[in-house]
Amino acid sequence: MTFANRLERLVRERRTVLCVGIDPRIDALPEELRARCSDIDGAAEAIAKFSLEIIDATADLCVCVKPQIAFFEQIGWRGFRVFEEVCAYARGKNVPVIADAKRGDIGSTSEAYADYFLGESGIADALTINPYLGADSLEPFTKAALANGRGVFILVKTSNKGSADIQDRESGGKKIFEHTARMVESLQTDAGELSSVGAVVGATYPEEAIRVREIIPRAWILVPGYGAQGGSAQDAYKSARADGLGIVVNSSRGIINAYGKSPYKEKFGTDWKSAIRAAAEDAARDLELRVKN
Amino acid sequence: MTFANRLERLVRERRTVLCVGIDPRIDALPEELRARCSDIDGAAEAIAKFSLEIIDATADLCVCVKPQIAFFEQIGWRGFRVFEEVCAYARGKNVPVIADAKRGDIGSTSEAYADYFLGESGIADALTINPYLGADSLEPFTKAALANGRGVFILVKTSNKGSADIQDRESGGKKIFEHTARMVESLQTDAGELSSVGAVVGATYPEEAIRVREIIPRAWILVPGYGAQGGSAQDAYKSARADGLGIVVNSSRGIINAYGKSPYKEKFGTDWKSAIRAAAEDAARDLELRVKN
Repeated sequence: MTFANRLERLVRERRTVLCVGIDPRIDALPEELRARCSDIDGAAEAIAKFSLEIIDATADLCVCVKPQIAFFEQIGWRGFRVFEEVCAYARGKNVPVIADAKRGDIGSTSEAYADYFLGESGIADALTINPYLGADSLEPFTKAALANGRGVFILVKTSNKGSADIQDRESGGKKIFEHTARMVESLQTDAGELSSVGAVVGATYPEEAIRVREIIPRAWILVPGYGAQGGSAQDAYKSARADGLGIVVNSSRGIINAYGKSPYKEKFGTDWKSAIRAAAEDAARDLELRVKN
Repeated sequence: MTFANRLERLVRERRTVLCVGIDPRIDALPEELRARCSDIDGAAEAIAKFSLEIIDATADLCVCVKPQIAFFEQIGWRGFRVFEEVCAYARGKNVPVIADAKRGDIGSTSEAYADYFLGESGIADALTINPYLGADSLEPFTKAALANGRGVFILVKTSNKGSADIQDRESGGKKIFEHTARMVESLQTDAGELSSVGAVVGATYPEEAIRVREIIPRAWILVPGYGAQGGSAQDAYKSARADGLGIVVNSSRGIINAYGKSPYKEKFGTDWKSAIRAAAEDAARDLELRVKN
């Protein structure tokens, strides 16, 4: 089954477009885990425990998870080992894993990255990739993905303010992010109503999201910027097709750090696992599959 | 001492601008090492051995080394552990390490990457970073670098053909790579004739290199694309200042795989270490510090 088909089936089954972001920042870990981080092996254990508990608490509520590799890499190779463990654990529970690593390099180097993440025994189901180096830098990723039932999400319009610096520049009557969207389209060599070659568009830019969907009607779009970063569910759905399909919407801090925030803090106290589950239930409901409006 | 000052001192002392690229592709390893790669631990050992021997053979001939993280990551966390070992080994020999990882993400995630590579106990002396997400995505890297005597090289005009797709688009009378160069300049908040906030410009685009140097006269520019990719030393020097300073020119395959190629193959046979040293000597001479012409 293709990655695009797997996502579609999960969204239809679960009636939500929630992607749970796994960002194990040490300074935001629950107290009982943070206390273990005095040395690097303890930190690796704490990050592993936190990430696996997130998966346990949310696997039946979401359609995919998105571990952010930076927070694993931050503690070095031990963190990388945990990253691999987390990916394998989620995949073992049939939860597709989008590795958020934003890779991109010239051809033969991209091949090495693609092999690791998206190859025959690659560790993830999909990978975020950066288009600055151009289409020939992305092809090794899309080829590996399509050959192995995996997917990619190419950065088109990111959720941060600085995304304007390059992505919003006009060139020949179109903005750079529109040109990037066309590049995504040129790489969608797979068949089907929805493609496994997708895009990233922030919920913080709903107008741009509408434009991107016009350019790449077949794309799965990964939408960051929902929740803590300010985008609403309605904003996020601007990236969807009319029938609501074609998006997965990421929430990281709003779910995984819910134990420190109202109303979960008051309700669950130090029971951070229940807080995470409750916040994921709320997010899944807020992001219920719906016809676009 | 700042990263910019360290590079300048080394270039003046060694009278060359050679950067040795460490790209341990398994399928290009010398036969005696490739034979060890039947399992993953053997592959990790082979990659480590190859990389450390490259450093031993070239440390006195170059001004920095540039390990490409993709080829370590390709074998997973064990490769990451080797990457850290390789960085530490080179730094222990006073050879500055440019980690070629092309990172870039939104603010708090970039902070995690920056901490790992360029923080107080960061593993590298400098890091390549990708500007597609804009200036606010790069600031955590430049801040960490300047606070800790490290450097960054921001992708401006890459050496591959596809670099035209985004980097050569015209916007407001200038190309995107020129806008990126201006972004680099805006991030050069350090003092001195040369800045630790640098750029990447391929030797395969000499005209563009001249333009970039005009926009960022204070930048250290990392120049890939020399040698195997087709750029000559004269092409590479287009990125330099008039006095020849301000560039480091990377050669990977031309040096580290020299044992398989004429004239080194004929001369050294299976003695791959001597072939690497001889090729590095040739490259260092070809890239001798010179007044620009």
